[in-house]
Amino acid sequence: MTDHDYKELPIGVFDSGVGGLTVLKAIREALPQENLIYLGDTARLPYGTKSPASIVRYAVQATKKLQDQGIKLLVIACNTASAVALDVLRDQMHPVPVLGVVEPGATAAVNARPGGSHLVLATEATVGLGAYRKAIERLDPEAKVREQACELLVSLAEEGWTNGSIADAIVRRYLAEAVDSEFTVDSIILGCTHFPLLRDTISCIAGEGVDVVDSAITTAAVVEKLLASAGHLRSSDEAATLRLLATDGATRFARVGGQFLGNSLQTSDIQLVDL
Amino acid sequence: MTDHDYKELPIGVFDSGVGGLTVLKAIREALPQENLIYLGDTARLPYGTKSPASIVRYAVQATKKLQDQGIKLLVIACNTASAVALDVLRDQMHPVPVLGVVEPGATAAVNARPGGSHLVLATEATVGLGAYRKAIERLDPEAKVREQACELLVSLAEEGWTNGSIADAIVRRYLAEAVDSEFTVDSIILGCTHFPLLRDTISCIAGEGVDVVDSAITTAAVVEKLLASAGHLRSSDEAATLRLLATDGATRFARVGGQFLGNSLQTSDIQLVDL
Repeated sequence: MTDHDYKELPIGVFDSGVGGLTVLKAIREALPQENLIYLGDTARLPYGTKSPASIVRYAVQATKKLQDQGIKLLVIACNTASAVALDVLRDQMHPVPVLGVVEPGATAAVNARPGGSHLVLATEATVGLGAYRKAIERLDPEAKVREQACELLVSLAEEGWTNGSIADAIVRRYLAEAVDSEFTVDSIILGCTHFPLLRDTISCIAGEGVDVVDSAITTAAVVEKLLASAGHLRSSDEAATLRLLATDGATRFARVGGQFLGNSLQTSDIQLVDL
Repeated sequence: MTDHDYKELPIGVFDSGVGGLTVLKAIREALPQENLIYLGDTARLPYGTKSPASIVRYAVQATKKLQDQGIKLLVIACNTASAVALDVLRDQMHPVPVLGVVEPGATAAVNARPGGSHLVLATEATVGLGAYRKAIERLDPEAKVREQACELLVSLAEEGWTNGSIADAIVRRYLAEAVDSEFTVDSIILGCTHFPLLRDTISCIAGEGVDVVDSAITTAAVVEKLLASAGHLRSSDEAATLRLLATDGATRFARVGGQFLGNSLQTSDIQLVDL
């Protein structure tokens, strides 16, 4: 393959559902010239309630599908799969680089507030794995970390109720549960791919002086850095392509996914695949 | 098997997760002397996003597991499986009776308000299948039916936020979306196994004069009638037994399931099984 052809290869993004489209959106905004391919394993979501062995098996199958299409970098946009399967997928894709969403989010939070107090908002499954806690404590042993499971925020994002009095009240209640006089928050890490849709509401309730770290944006920044340093950024003048694959439910993927991606999707935009 | 031994057999209840425990609870309250066995296919939930062929396969496997234990009646407490797999499971269990949750709920609503206007609150998947609409229109061609998907109510029930200002605001918003000047509600059917936990809130917001039909309670009443007419009610003086089986996640099953069943559960109360 020529150097030009290699640069033409898409960046692959994999998630258990539509949530990872927030990561795809951030990559597209940072790197509008890049070809992109997304795979949502909607037939087997949610990964969070599955056993680690099953999650690894699913992630390997999804990665194989993207690998067969040809990609120059893989982003695991699913927090659960990032926490459980990152090493296995790096072996599988070698020498193509593989990024999770946990490490970039944790790094950005720690760099902005060394020795700070970080509140991770995530799903129950991600909190149970302690993935952000471990990553932050490894990067900054002085940091304090709390993790708050916020399942209702997932439904709020999927329902599209991301602003207004109901979203405000729910965010307020979760923050009140997580914070007390022993723990004053310096930064809030959006540790679920759905939560960037609630970023404005969370920022507003948290108040000034609290950083809100969006794992999607920080991951996109690392993608750019990695491709630039390897000399693999696409340089063609032709319009970039976007392919969306799902393992089930194209209609729902289009409807809910459009909100996550920030532009409307048709069912025919989604290609159903078997893994 | 003697008549006494047959009456000793448990009633089997099957659901994709913990939601069906509201049906189990209603059966236990109506028939406290009956032995009960519950199977939650937590490894493969939610069924609602799966293809009909997959749902039938899963339901057949779950039913086989309960059949192998020996049961005298099967309740399919999962709305999706009731809508898709009832006939297949009746063939499989014959001559043991099999009940879904859709028919009893629809029948109770129609009998209470002939020619009335029925609002079905359900998950997106159940609304998509139109199961309650079809059942109501078959029973009462004069009836008017609207179906409202209420995904956030599922998370509210699992989070345990079933009362208070957040639950009120969410229920109020869904009812406002469903109702207009063309459709004045006579009855609200709780068409998801999670929603009985929100019954008081829904009744309160709907106001006086609106029936709230709980499929769990109406299903339990049909179970009692069926067993009584067949002469299969248990008559032993010994305490009834309750067995809880799940295919994954015993800890979460115990924590969330306890709220649904109305008494606290330990992880050790849940037996993990493969299907």
